[in-house]
Amino acid sequence: MARERAAKRREGNEIEFSRIVAFSDGVFAIAITLLVLNLTIDKGLSSGDLTSALFDNWDNLVAYGISFAVIGRFWIVHHRMFSEVKAFDGRLLGLNLFYLGWIVLIPFSSQVLGDYGGETPSVVLYSVNLAAVVLIGLWMGADARRRGLSTTDDETHHENRIRSTYIAGIFLLSIPLGFVAPRAAPYLWLLLFFDPSSRLVSRDGR
Amino acid sequence: MARERAAKRREGNEIEFSRIVAFSDGVFAIAITLLVLNLTIDKGLSSGDLTSALFDNWDNLVAYGISFAVIGRFWIVHHRMFSEVKAFDGRLLGLNLFYLGWIVLIPFSSQVLGDYGGETPSVVLYSVNLAAVVLIGLWMGADARRRGLSTTDDETHHENRIRSTYIAGIFLLSIPLGFVAPRAAPYLWLLLFFDPSSRLVSRDGR
Amino acid sequence: MARERAAKRREGNEIEFSRIVAFSDGVFAIAITLLVLNLTIDKGLSSGDLTSALFDNWDNLVAYGISFAVIGRFWIVHHRMFSEVKAFDGRLLGLNLFYLGWIVLIPFSSQVLGDYGGETPSVVLYSVNLAAVVLIGLWMGADARRRGLSTTDDETHHENRIRSTYIAGIFLLSIPLGFVAPRAAPYLWLLLFFDPSSRLVSRDGR
Amino acid sequence: MARERAAKRREGNEIEFSRIVAFSDGVFAIAITLLVLNLTIDKGLSSGDLTSALFDNWDNLVAYGISFAVIGRFWIVHHRMFSEVKAFDGRLLGLNLFYLGWIVLIPFSSQVLGDYGGETPSVVLYSVNLAAVVLIGLWMGADARRRGLSTTDDETHHENRIRSTYIAGIFLLSIPLGFVAPRAAPYLWLLLFFDPSSRLVSRDGR
Repeated sequence: MARERAAKRREGNEIEFSRIVAFSDGVFAIAITLLVLNLTIDKGLSSGDLTSALFDNWDNLVAYGISFAVIGRFWIVHHRMFSEVKAFDGRLLGLNLFYLGWIVLIPFSSQVLGDYGGETPSVVLYSVNLAAVVLIGLWMGADARRRGLSTTDDETHHENRIRSTYIAGIFLLSIPLGFVAPRAAPYLWLLLFFDPSSRLVSRDGR
Repeated sequence: MARERAAKRREGNEIEFSRIVAFSDGVFAIAITLLVLNLTIDKGLSSGDLTSALFDNWDNLVAYGISFAVIGRFWIVHHRMFSEVKAFDGRLLGLNLFYLGWIVLIPFSSQVLGDYGGETPSVVLYSVNLAAVVLIGLWMGADARRRGLSTTDDETHHENRIRSTYIAGIFLLSIPLGFVAPRAAPYLWLLLFFDPSSRLVSRDGR
Repeated sequence: MARERAAKRREGNEIEFSRIVAFSDGVFAIAITLLVLNLTIDKGLSSGDLTSALFDNWDNLVAYGISFAVIGRFWIVHHRMFSEVKAFDGRLLGLNLFYLGWIVLIPFSSQVLGDYGGETPSVVLYSVNLAAVVLIGLWMGADARRRGLSTTDDETHHENRIRSTYIAGIFLLSIPLGFVAPRAAPYLWLLLFFDPSSRLVSRDGR
Repeated sequence: MARERAAKRREGNEIEFSRIVAFSDGVFAIAITLLVLNLTIDKGLSSGDLTSALFDNWDNLVAYGISFAVIGRFWIVHHRMFSEVKAFDGRLLGLNLFYLGWIVLIPFSSQVLGDYGGETPSVVLYSVNLAAVVLIGLWMGADARRRGLSTTDDETHHENRIRSTYIAGIFLLSIPLGFVAPRAAPYLWLLLFFDPSSRLVSRDGR
């Protein structure tokens, strides 16, 4: 019954609903684009120094690439989750804002990571930031589903939980790793390219 | 009669109407995302200094959190108000722009607050900015309603007025407080988490 | 005949058409929000110096207000024009981009104006930028109408031409004024608040 | 059969589909607007020095103009391509993000080009960036078409391939040119204004 009323709310409030989605998309789009501001070159260098400066930006470029892929992936997950949301209320709006608040922090964490590649504080900051995003996203999705706002079926929900737990696990694991071997953490993040639920995803995208 | 004509205008002008909303959402989304630019770390620090620098950013992080929550809340209020707007004219567009002009100032006020946490000028600037947003928002809503552009019912309008007056009151009160005890003002802002009309809101979001 | 085919194009291509509008709105929204980046306060000032610094920002705040109002007004004009566009082609897309390229320059011209309030180069730069926006906008509107892409009626078109010519005239006039009496130019801009076609506008917004 | 299922996906998922397009538009709009941040004037100059500083910004202004036109043109191409996309899956989302990741780099490459106009590293960086955008865009379009996600007809596809190859060719050619005669490269880019498939385009825009 709750689901039925909820489903109606989206249908009768298309514009408001699409505003939530549009606002979230705007925040994602701006956050992902602000990443480029972390790449800078001083003025007035000689041609040789310019080449060096560009190569010295390598760490920042890697941080740019990782963060672009990470925010992009979070956007896809958010996109997928909200495509199954059939109703919204103040609580979902609040959770979504809380979620976005951590997304917007990523350009900052990414800049610190780019400037201080292999050091403990930057790796820990980045890992905490990204783990928070994943966990809050998981909370938001489970909360919306439990209260009948989203029609995610059991299988998809299960799959989302596996994927989110996997990603959060990688970043939670890289917090202690950041203390003992900060240079190794980025290699741990390569595991992000392996998707434990990829068969389900590819089936979904079939 | 006026309302009927107005209601028709929205229906016949969906694209233009949604542009107003989309433009406002864009401004909100960018303003809320620019907050992250207030968080910066110098380059070339040692690992220990980096840790200190991150902890020194604590005030800026608190300002980021407050301002993100505040802009997010204003967005929800704007979102709710425009969901009941059934028509628009040049005057509403103008008031909306005036309102957005104060929203866009928040990242600046927030940066000053983050950099000069417990000092009189920053607390006064921030309070003036936010009180202005609330009062102009109240003005815009009442004006749209009086001229038949919005179909807000009496109860909701009454509720909005209570809530806005409450929030504006907190920020107006923190202006004199900023002069006598600037360090105390942020604690006053904790009252923002108490909502005098929360029962109505939760009913609305039921 | 041309108009009929054109009108059909918009109807059959709602998503593409709304993308053009959405992209333009995005550019307007970002340009108007970037204006706030022109307001900055150095770190590490004493409380007294902070107050002085805030008051020293007065010129920048005035430039912020003027430019926010100006971009906002251009957005309304753009909004009104595109609400009567019934078809688009590569040429309109190109002209729209050319127009937006001058809109995006405004935050730069505005920053120079804020930093160098009463000086010749800043007044000339600002006037050239805004006159260009108005003239290109007029060109775009007239071009779209002549080629049957927009259904602006004669009266509205006439009104737009009067208004645009009036605004462009003010800024073109302030170029020579900037050379002989740069401090007087902003007072000339107060004429912008007088609208020679305001009766028609208020009727339109009835 | 694949195309039919795909075509259905877009129709049944309008909101999700428009989110992809809206997110891309947002990224384009922000990237194109961030270009203005590359134009800066120091504070505290004399009136004469200000004039010089504005003229010294000429290279940056040229880079602004080129990059604005280039991003705008890529947006039109993206716009045209997605108007014929009838379905999406994870792979198209991923390719689109990869494409956008290179679009967002343009403000950085453009800044380097503006600061270091006629030098080898900046010309090479800019050329590599833009060639990558064109080639990835071509890949994305061909991939979507081959997998039945887009309904681009043979003629349009052929035309797109000619145009993209032409543009990519210009930028690929300017990489070696950047090593031997960096000052000549921008003149090569003037060839961008000649469109080998312009007859087809003008017919399309008829």
